[in-house]
Amino acid sequence: MCELLGMSANVPTDVRFSFAGLSRRGGGTGPHRDGWGIAFYEGRGARVFHDPQPSAHSEIARLLRDYEIKSRTVIAHVRRANRGRVALENTHPFTRELWGRAWTFAHNGQLKGIKKRSLGAFHPIGGTDSEHAFCWIMGRLSARFDALPRVAELALAIEELCEDLAPLGVFNMLLSDGRALYVFCNKALHYIERRAPFGRATLVDEDLQMDFAKVTTPDDRVVVIASSPLTRDETWLSLPLGRLSVALDGRILRPIKRRAAR
Amino acid sequence: MCELLGMSANVPTDVRFSFAGLSRRGGGTGPHRDGWGIAFYEGRGARVFHDPQPSAHSEIARLLRDYEIKSRTVIAHVRRANRGRVALENTHPFTRELWGRAWTFAHNGQLKGIKKRSLGAFHPIGGTDSEHAFCWIMGRLSARFDALPRVAELALAIEELCEDLAPLGVFNMLLSDGRALYVFCNKALHYIERRAPFGRATLVDEDLQMDFAKVTTPDDRVVVIASSPLTRDETWLSLPLGRLSVALDGRILRPIKRRAAR
Repeated sequence: MCELLGMSANVPTDVRFSFAGLSRRGGGTGPHRDGWGIAFYEGRGARVFHDPQPSAHSEIARLLRDYEIKSRTVIAHVRRANRGRVALENTHPFTRELWGRAWTFAHNGQLKGIKKRSLGAFHPIGGTDSEHAFCWIMGRLSARFDALPRVAELALAIEELCEDLAPLGVFNMLLSDGRALYVFCNKALHYIERRAPFGRATLVDEDLQMDFAKVTTPDDRVVVIASSPLTRDETWLSLPLGRLSVALDGRILRPIKRRAAR
Repeated sequence: MCELLGMSANVPTDVRFSFAGLSRRGGGTGPHRDGWGIAFYEGRGARVFHDPQPSAHSEIARLLRDYEIKSRTVIAHVRRANRGRVALENTHPFTRELWGRAWTFAHNGQLKGIKKRSLGAFHPIGGTDSEHAFCWIMGRLSARFDALPRVAELALAIEELCEDLAPLGVFNMLLSDGRALYVFCNKALHYIERRAPFGRATLVDEDLQMDFAKVTTPDDRVVVIASSPLTRDETWLSLPLGRLSVALDGRILRPIKRRAAR
């Protein structure tokens, strides 16, 4: 299994505090030592860092803990290999271009029989279940929409595809084009919405505290999504199982179906 | 204009010496201060680092000068913006998946009217001429071949597409799927093939010397391609203009047409 981290914010936000917690789980406080990756959106572009080394001991992860990259949308992953050997091409997040947008995807879980599903225009580079599922989703979306749909319309389509995949096994996933962060879970994902008044928080995995009041303005909003809570002194909530959640501009929009039907 | 760096080797090879020279030209010894990027293939995967900061002053470029990543195929680029603003999505190399392979592309030059060319399945994320040209090439290749062709067959197809684009302006480009490095130039690209007996070389842009004999075995072969020679005490050759060259396993295969017709 693996662990996921997602962030959506209404202003470019430093994710280093959360990433410090996640990356400790990659061979330090957790067993997810088979590589890691992170995608930071900046405008329409995405910086994506991958490393098949354990994140707890990775030089590149150390750089990212020291070097401020502010982003409104982040997807990160630490891997415990089950399907697909430990290799660069098997490290999440995976990326593809669709409708002139850079899409990134990370997954926690296993999907039995996913490789029997025929693919459209997108094909896996590596050998994981996860990348096959991503390619299947991208192929179905590209066949259905000629151009980028509105978030609500796209969310409905993504939810249908996720509901189709979920019975194959554990399917906790983060998917983004940098505009919205689409989140599905059928096992466990947690989230926290941070907004004014901002307080302090302490990591679960490292003796590191952050005073968010010092690095934010009163209008800032940030939502952080993680496989298990990253801080020990905040109240994290569970995301609903079997449903798509959408994080946009630092808040979770739910439920999608009701909003889309307005 | 921009500067390009490509490397092909028969064993995983450290490109830091050449990258140190190139990255100095990104706002240090050269005016290419509008971002930089580098792709390192590892197996079927590629690590791609992008930064809209000048490479001479970039924290990520500094990490890559200090941190050994060995690769058999590398494409790097330092940018002087002409079309497309300074932004992450406009920094080369660009990447796309085709036939289950990760393709990367970097370009030096301008192509007048390229954006009038209609595209197939691949669309630009940013606003550069270069990414439009890359998407056009990928679209034409995907329409022509259902699966990855042999290198010689693909080289012929890529050469035809490059000959079609070259009259639009300056078209010096590097394209790879990690297997071979396809190189086209109609203005200027230089290369050097290094093999035993290995000697020493000194960078043009920095007072840095390398003794290749200390880091190689007698069977190693490396070819380095650059917009202008990176070392001052080796003999660099010009690549033929208006033709596709292919670097494979550390040597330049030429001419393609004659080889393919065998």
